Amino acid sequence: MSGTVGVLIGPSSEPWLRDAVVAGGGTPVDDPRLAQAIIWRGSDHQGFSRILAAAPGVAWVQLGAAGTDAWASTGLFGDGRTWTSAKGAYAEAVAEHALTLLLALLRDLPRFTRATTWLPQSGRTLFDRTVLVVGADGGIGREIVRLLTPFRTRILGATRDGVHDAETGQSLTLTDALCQSDAVVLAPPLTPQTRGMIGRDELAALHRGAVVVNISRGAVIDTDALADALRTGEIAAAALDVTDPEPLPDGHPLWALDNCLITPHTANPATMLEPQFARRIVDNLRRFASGIPLIGVIDADKGY
Amino acid sequence: MSGTVGVLIGPSSEPWLRDAVVAGGGTPVDDPRLAQAIIWRGSDHQGFSRILAAAPGVAWVQLGAAGTDAWASTGLFGDGRTWTSAKGAYAEAVAEHALTLLLALLRDLPRFTRATTWLPQSGRTLFDRTVLVVGADGGIGREIVRLLTPFRTRILGATRDGVHDAETGQSLTLTDALCQSDAVVLAPPLTPQTRGMIGRDELAALHRGAVVVNISRGAVIDTDALADALRTGEIAAAALDVTDPEPLPDGHPLWALDNCLITPHTANPATMLEPQFARRIVDNLRRFASGIPLIGVIDADKGY
Repeated sequence: MSGTVGVLIGPSSEPWLRDAVVAGGGTPVDDPRLAQAIIWRGSDHQGFSRILAAAPGVAWVQLGAAGTDAWASTGLFGDGRTWTSAKGAYAEAVAEHALTLLLALLRDLPRFTRATTWLPQSGRTLFDRTVLVVGADGGIGREIVRLLTPFRTRILGATRDGVHDAETGQSLTLTDALCQSDAVVLAPPLTPQTRGMIGRDELAALHRGAVVVNISRGAVIDTDALADALRTGEIAAAALDVTDPEPLPDGHPLWALDNCLITPHTANPATMLEPQFARRIVDNLRRFASGIPLIGVIDADKGY
Repeated sequence: MSGTVGVLIGPSSEPWLRDAVVAGGGTPVDDPRLAQAIIWRGSDHQGFSRILAAAPGVAWVQLGAAGTDAWASTGLFGDGRTWTSAKGAYAEAVAEHALTLLLALLRDLPRFTRATTWLPQSGRTLFDRTVLVVGADGGIGREIVRLLTPFRTRILGATRDGVHDAETGQSLTLTDALCQSDAVVLAPPLTPQTRGMIGRDELAALHRGAVVVNISRGAVIDTDALADALRTGEIAAAALDVTDPEPLPDGHPLWALDNCLITPHTANPATMLEPQFARRIVDNLRRFASGIPLIGVIDADKGY
């Protein structure tokens, strides 16, 4: 066995990915039989499974996405190999987009953007607000908390272990947290527990000035309940980088709501993503070659 | 003489201002002859001068605005009294608005806001960019720099003393700084030196991906030159909370430009402003009563 790790890149072996493999000390290979690792982007499970079946030497699979909900149901994660997602690699860009959307809503930018006349002043500040961050312990969630810090926000962090005040550690129910929050930022993985976690009751618990930002997965929110809450003014506004269904079809009621800002799953566009993922490949290849624990290992039981 | 400072509030003595005076240990007075201090909001110089002429005991004038360019030409600042503006009191809110506008431009929010269909991904990150902050040594400028810090931006700070790299201290010409900048945030006072400081040559020095944010005074930018640069794509986009003329009249060419985001001088709307100014009144009244230097003292020579 040579001292360098054979890496199969799929479904297409783009030059920047090959460059990253080489930069990490690996060797790009096209023959699955020579591969000890696979780097796989996208969601073609069938194509992936065919490759994997022909690659008996593969001990590690690096997926390109941070969210791996579409893979969890395949059962592949429990196969004894090490599986890593890109979780954390895109955290800065995604958290930045979340902050951008949050500030844009508070500052009434959607309204001002559409105006062609000098409107009366309006807008609210983020300073000293209470923000519920769902998924506060994830890579993106922690980065969101970091970016909120200069605004002296009170952070309520929701994780699998419940909701806690980030400063005091005090535990709250989700309903209590929603009642106290001026903004909710959704950054959890999509799991059976988080699917639909923001529904009618949760939206009703928010006060009428509250705003909701989702940069996680559309299905974390009950879309119909959200549309109703925005239409009736039960909450002030929402900004969605992810939707359910996605892409949001033309003519969907959310497009018609002035208090709903929609961006096309662009928290981390491909142009930003490639250098971030390349950095992760380099990191993980060096770790793999040295037997150091990899970054972004997927817990097969949790599915992410 | 009583131990409490007589404060005349004008042009109108609103309850929250009277409350602030009382909270600061002062006594609101309506008779100018009993006043040792005046708190004056707005730009009615004539009305102010009439009051002042009838108030021989006034040693301190607290103005309500942070920018006092409209007062500088009256010559009042050199009258031997202590003049304070509200500079710094609104810094957090204004800096927050500047960051909001900057992020909104980089993340293509104006385009997404107008869309009613799922567009291709786009957007750029603020992380690791170079940002030229004009007025970097002012209350707002310093707060902008603080809010930019989590994004690992390279800050070039422009002040009366030139342009310096905030990290290395290295000095640059304004043209060099513009050439290197991905974004320009304008936060200087309006003075003869800053009026029109961003004109055709300065806009031409920026690269085509650069964005400009103005939260200072409209006249810092040559409006016609900016409109041309936005129309021809010489710069990528601009966001203006202040314009020249202001308010920007209906039908002005800037309203028609998709890459120009305009907000109506709302970085610090009245709803946010009042508690901030009240806090400053309390602070300064206590200092005045104790003979401690006031916050926001206007330098008569500089005019701000």
